[in-house]
Amino acid sequence: MMTNYPTKELLRMTTQAYGAHAADKPIEAIAIERRAPGAQDVQIEIAYCGICHSDLHTVRGEWPGTLYPCVPGHEIVGHVSAVGGDVSKFKVGDTVGVGCLVNSCQHCASCGEGLEQYCTNGFVGTYNGPTADAPGHTLGGYSQRIVVDEKFVLKVTHPEDQLAAVAPLLCAGITTYSPLRHWKAGPGKKVGIVGIGGLGHMGVKLAHAMGAHTVAFTTSESKRQDAHALGADEVVISRDDAQMQQHAGTFDFILNTVAAPHNLDAFTNLLKRDGTMCLVGVPASPHPSPSVAGLIFGRKAIAGSLIGGIAETQEMLDFCAEHGIVSEIEMVTAQQIDEAYERMLKSDVKYRFVIDNATMSA
Amino acid sequence: MMTNYPTKELLRMTTQAYGAHAADKPIEAIAIERRAPGAQDVQIEIAYCGICHSDLHTVRGEWPGTLYPCVPGHEIVGHVSAVGGDVSKFKVGDTVGVGCLVNSCQHCASCGEGLEQYCTNGFVGTYNGPTADAPGHTLGGYSQRIVVDEKFVLKVTHPEDQLAAVAPLLCAGITTYSPLRHWKAGPGKKVGIVGIGGLGHMGVKLAHAMGAHTVAFTTSESKRQDAHALGADEVVISRDDAQMQQHAGTFDFILNTVAAPHNLDAFTNLLKRDGTMCLVGVPASPHPSPSVAGLIFGRKAIAGSLIGGIAETQEMLDFCAEHGIVSEIEMVTAQQIDEAYERMLKSDVKYRFVIDNATMSA
Repeated sequence: MMTNYPTKELLRMTTQAYGAHAADKPIEAIAIERRAPGAQDVQIEIAYCGICHSDLHTVRGEWPGTLYPCVPGHEIVGHVSAVGGDVSKFKVGDTVGVGCLVNSCQHCASCGEGLEQYCTNGFVGTYNGPTADAPGHTLGGYSQRIVVDEKFVLKVTHPEDQLAAVAPLLCAGITTYSPLRHWKAGPGKKVGIVGIGGLGHMGVKLAHAMGAHTVAFTTSESKRQDAHALGADEVVISRDDAQMQQHAGTFDFILNTVAAPHNLDAFTNLLKRDGTMCLVGVPASPHPSPSVAGLIFGRKAIAGSLIGGIAETQEMLDFCAEHGIVSEIEMVTAQQIDEAYERMLKSDVKYRFVIDNATMSA
Repeated sequence: MMTNYPTKELLRMTTQAYGAHAADKPIEAIAIERRAPGAQDVQIEIAYCGICHSDLHTVRGEWPGTLYPCVPGHEIVGHVSAVGGDVSKFKVGDTVGVGCLVNSCQHCASCGEGLEQYCTNGFVGTYNGPTADAPGHTLGGYSQRIVVDEKFVLKVTHPEDQLAAVAPLLCAGITTYSPLRHWKAGPGKKVGIVGIGGLGHMGVKLAHAMGAHTVAFTTSESKRQDAHALGADEVVISRDDAQMQQHAGTFDFILNTVAAPHNLDAFTNLLKRDGTMCLVGVPASPHPSPSVAGLIFGRKAIAGSLIGGIAETQEMLDFCAEHGIVSEIEMVTAQQIDEAYERMLKSDVKYRFVIDNATMSA
């Protein structure tokens, strides 16, 4: 379809962002370019961006393959400021979100099923992914503006004053929502959430809202009251063997959000026959090898799950709006990102940092 | 229901068996007692008993908790020689089998669903399990006679001349049949069988008979022709990275029968999205810890499965009779059991040793 939309060159624009020029460099202001919106593109003025642990791993070069300059951020909410001629789902002024994906091959089996996160040809991450745009890799939401194909833009229907707290739903929310749905958390099911951090606190809220009997596992007695307030029906201190043993063989599903290496058997032991524990965090060094006998004697499984597809992310946002669910957040300025990282490393955050992107103005 | 059946004391009888008096003692002739058949019991003259790797682990004390004297054997076929007054399913002369289970609580959820192998209160194994019978633990099929509750006795409908080769179906057969059914091996599915030994050769035959596209994985080029003859559509030498890579991301299900510690990631890498690899062997020392990222990027699972319930074991026997499936066996005498163990340790068996129990006569 032809349009009269101006050429990309004319509209390409410089955007203020925060990122790093190298693994050992601090987060600082960087001027980046955004492409002019193409026919199917949505240009978004970013209001808030959540800080995910993946941001830190990537920008500090802790995972292989970081391309610099690196501008992290994939928990993006904002407002549409321009749309391409073929865009039908969005108009200027709409409140929208962008999560971990900004493109995929759109023709493989997974894309065909709306599971772009498992794109056989590799999805394009919101940052550090391949793109024809300068500088050759995608730059994320630690920036004032982003341009994204409408297929990868989500509608946000939460009240406007909740917008900052909606941002973490785009990664922490969907990462926990998708496996909870896939393994059918709901009424009559006993569901465990291991780790009450950025991901886990969303897992507790979501499993509770889905109607499951929700048990929060934490190593910190200090999180007990919080976990109940988030929606946990029970709270178990996972270091207390006696408490753990009381739940042996009783869980339909356990969502394990802890990336630090730990004893998985302590949790598979709590599954019912045919139960699954799903891991959503990649440990920096391997977990102790899980007991095979522990799986065999109960036909249990250890599985993994990766964020969610676009359709399911929209479903999650709608579910959260309907149930009044947002993330628990602490707002920071763009200048405080490195400080926020340091606090995140000490688990000193309840439960997600969100950047106020208005603080990026030069 | 009352019967005129004689009291147990009157009919208790001495039976010739083969077993060991201690972990470091050889297998030798042992006289054991079998209980008189109770009202619901079936007394079986054992014709043949397969030799399972578990027999060796147990009798040599390689797993904790072996009780001596130990008489192994849970791949039992024979003929009914007496039945209790309440027995309705069997009559004298019937050809029958007994597998890994001779009792369970029969009131837990798993027992209620016919999954006695996952009995919450612990099933009673055919050997080394708790029993009121002397000497206080069950004694298995390396014996001339056994007495079993009819609920745990299976009908065998194969031709009589195949009886020896039916014996291994009672453990090796059901251990592979159950997960293949549970994870829906069948037409249109690509199924891998890892390891072409006692279990694996049955897995290949069964997956093929179920209609799955069956791929055998072996470390030995020498097993290629055999694997095709067993029913494999393709054979992959698992040590050949190039061959393995050709199958990346293509399997619906992989049944891994190898108990020796090995790199599980080499196989999870071959699974499609949402695929499962099921382990049925407990390694003596842990496998290298599997890659969590390998599970997350594809929503894959590593699971376990334990033998099968009584109803499914009957279904498997009927399926095998219908499809003309038996185990590939080498017959040995009772006096050759230790020798058979040594050969089994060297994988020098195609593919299952079966004891001719007639050789136990004093």
